[in-house]
Amino acid sequence: MNPIGIFDSGVGGLTVFREIARLLPHHPLIYLGDSARVPYGTKSPAIVQRYSLEAANHLVQRGIGMLVVACNTATSAALPALKKALDIPVIGVIEPGARAAAERTKGRVGVIATEGTVSSRAYTRAIHAIKPSVEVIESAAPLFVPLAEEGWGNTHVAREVAEIYLEPLLDAGIDTLVLGCTHYPILRGTIEHVVGDQIAIVDSAETTAECVREMCPSPVASRHHLPAERGDGRRSRGEGSHTFLVTDAAERFRRIASEFLEQEIEKLELVSLS
Amino acid sequence: MNPIGIFDSGVGGLTVFREIARLLPHHPLIYLGDSARVPYGTKSPAIVQRYSLEAANHLVQRGIGMLVVACNTATSAALPALKKALDIPVIGVIEPGARAAAERTKGRVGVIATEGTVSSRAYTRAIHAIKPSVEVIESAAPLFVPLAEEGWGNTHVAREVAEIYLEPLLDAGIDTLVLGCTHYPILRGTIEHVVGDQIAIVDSAETTAECVREMCPSPVASRHHLPAERGDGRRSRGEGSHTFLVTDAAERFRRIASEFLEQEIEKLELVSLS
Repeated sequence: MNPIGIFDSGVGGLTVFREIARLLPHHPLIYLGDSARVPYGTKSPAIVQRYSLEAANHLVQRGIGMLVVACNTATSAALPALKKALDIPVIGVIEPGARAAAERTKGRVGVIATEGTVSSRAYTRAIHAIKPSVEVIESAAPLFVPLAEEGWGNTHVAREVAEIYLEPLLDAGIDTLVLGCTHYPILRGTIEHVVGDQIAIVDSAETTAECVREMCPSPVASRHHLPAERGDGRRSRGEGSHTFLVTDAAERFRRIASEFLEQEIEKLELVSLS
Repeated sequence: MNPIGIFDSGVGGLTVFREIARLLPHHPLIYLGDSARVPYGTKSPAIVQRYSLEAANHLVQRGIGMLVVACNTATSAALPALKKALDIPVIGVIEPGARAAAERTKGRVGVIATEGTVSSRAYTRAIHAIKPSVEVIESAAPLFVPLAEEGWGNTHVAREVAEIYLEPLLDAGIDTLVLGCTHYPILRGTIEHVVGDQIAIVDSAETTAECVREMCPSPVASRHHLPAERGDGRRSRGEGSHTFLVTDAAERFRRIASEFLEQEIEKLELVSLS
C-alpha cells in the first residue's frame, strides 16, 4: 500500500491531513511542508508552480500512490502542471470545496482565502464550471493565517478580525461561505460564531478528505483492519504510519503541528527540495 | 558616488530606507526586497545566511558602496558572514538599536521582534556587549508584521494586539522598548499609545539611518547640492535616485511600498537571486 502524499507550503495543510487521517485511519500518510519557502500566498504563480513540482517530485521518490495538494495557492497555480507531470492521481483542495459550495448554495457564495488565491479567481472559475448561475464573491483574509499559527484562533482579536473581514460578505447576502485557505479551519469556531447558523460553511479540508476517500481504491479503506483483526495486536509495518517532512525550521513546525493536530509529532524529517 | 544598497526579506526594510532617504536625500539608493523568499523570521539561521549572501552579491554587482542589512533576522543570522564576504562597509540594524537602548535605559530594556530574532538573543548579546548590567527582556510579536502589511497599523485590532504583546513587558517594568523588527515602525503610533510616554522607544530604522549617515564619507552628505547650485536645474545622473528590486510579486510590493513610503514607487525591477 503506497502512502498518500499531502503537500503544503507550511502548516496549513495539516487541517487536510487531519481530516484524511480521520477518514482513512489505517492508511500511511506522508506530509510535506515546504517551510523554507512558506508562504506561497503572496508569491507569483510561476514560482509557486516550480516549488510545487519540486515538492511533488520529492514525494514521488518516496513512493506515494496519490498526491493531495493541501494548499489553495499551489492548487490554483500548479494543479494542471502537477497532473501533467505525475502519473499518479493528484487531488487539489479547490475542486472539492467548489463542488460542495455549488451543491449547498441557494445562489450566492462567499469565498475567503489568501491574496494569491483570491487574485487567481480559481474558486469563481471552479464554481461556475459546475453551476454558472451562482454568484461568487471572493475576499482576502490574510490575517487569519498568522492568527492560526499564533494559536489565537479562538481569541477576542480573532473574533474582531473575522467581523471586519466577513462583514462585506454578510452585507452582500451570501448564503454559503467557503474557507478557501487550509489554515482557516483552525478559526472555524470563530468564523461560525460571526456568520451565524444561517450560512453554510464549506471547509475545504473536509471536502478534500472526502474526495480522497472516494478516490482511494476500496481495499485501502477496508483491508487494513485485517492485521488487528488477526489478533496479533500489531498493525502491518507502515500501515497507518504518519511521516512529516519539512524543508526548514523543524521545531517551529513541530510546535504548531502539535497544536493543529492536537497530538505530538513523532516522525519528523528535515529535507531539501532545491 | 556609489549607491547605498539596502536589503531586506520583503517590505519591512522600507522603514530603514525611508529614514536613510530622509537623512541623505541626495544619495542614490538601491533597495532589494527578497519577496520570493519572505519571511526570513521563521527560517533557520543557515538558510537566512545563504539568502543574505545571495542578495548582497547581487547588490555588489550593481556597484553599491555600502550595504545596509535592513532586516533584523538577516542581521542576526548573517552579519558576520556578510562582513567577511564583502569588502565594502556592512551595517546591520541590531547594533545601532542596541547602542541607543543601552544609552537611554535606566536598567531594563524590552525588545519586541520576530520569533527568529528573539530566538537568536541577538539584542540581548548586543546590549550586554555595550552595558552588561542592563536587564533585557525579549518577546516575539509576530502579528505586527501582517498587521503592518495589511495597512492595519493604526486600527483598533492593532491596538488590542499591541496591548496583549506589550502587557508582559510593561508588567516587567521596562523603561525602554526596542522595535526590533523593521516592520514595527509602521505601528509606532499604536505602540506609543499603549506604552505611554514614560517608556523610551528605540526605532531601529531611525538609529540605523543615523549610523549610515555617520559612516558615509562627508562628501556624500554635502557635495550633491552642487549640481542644483550650478543653476542648471538638473541633478547629476544617479544622484538621489531610488531603485527598487524585488525577487517576486512586484505589484504587491509596489502597493505596500507606496503605503509605507507614502509615495509612488517609480523604478521597480524583478530580479532573480538563485
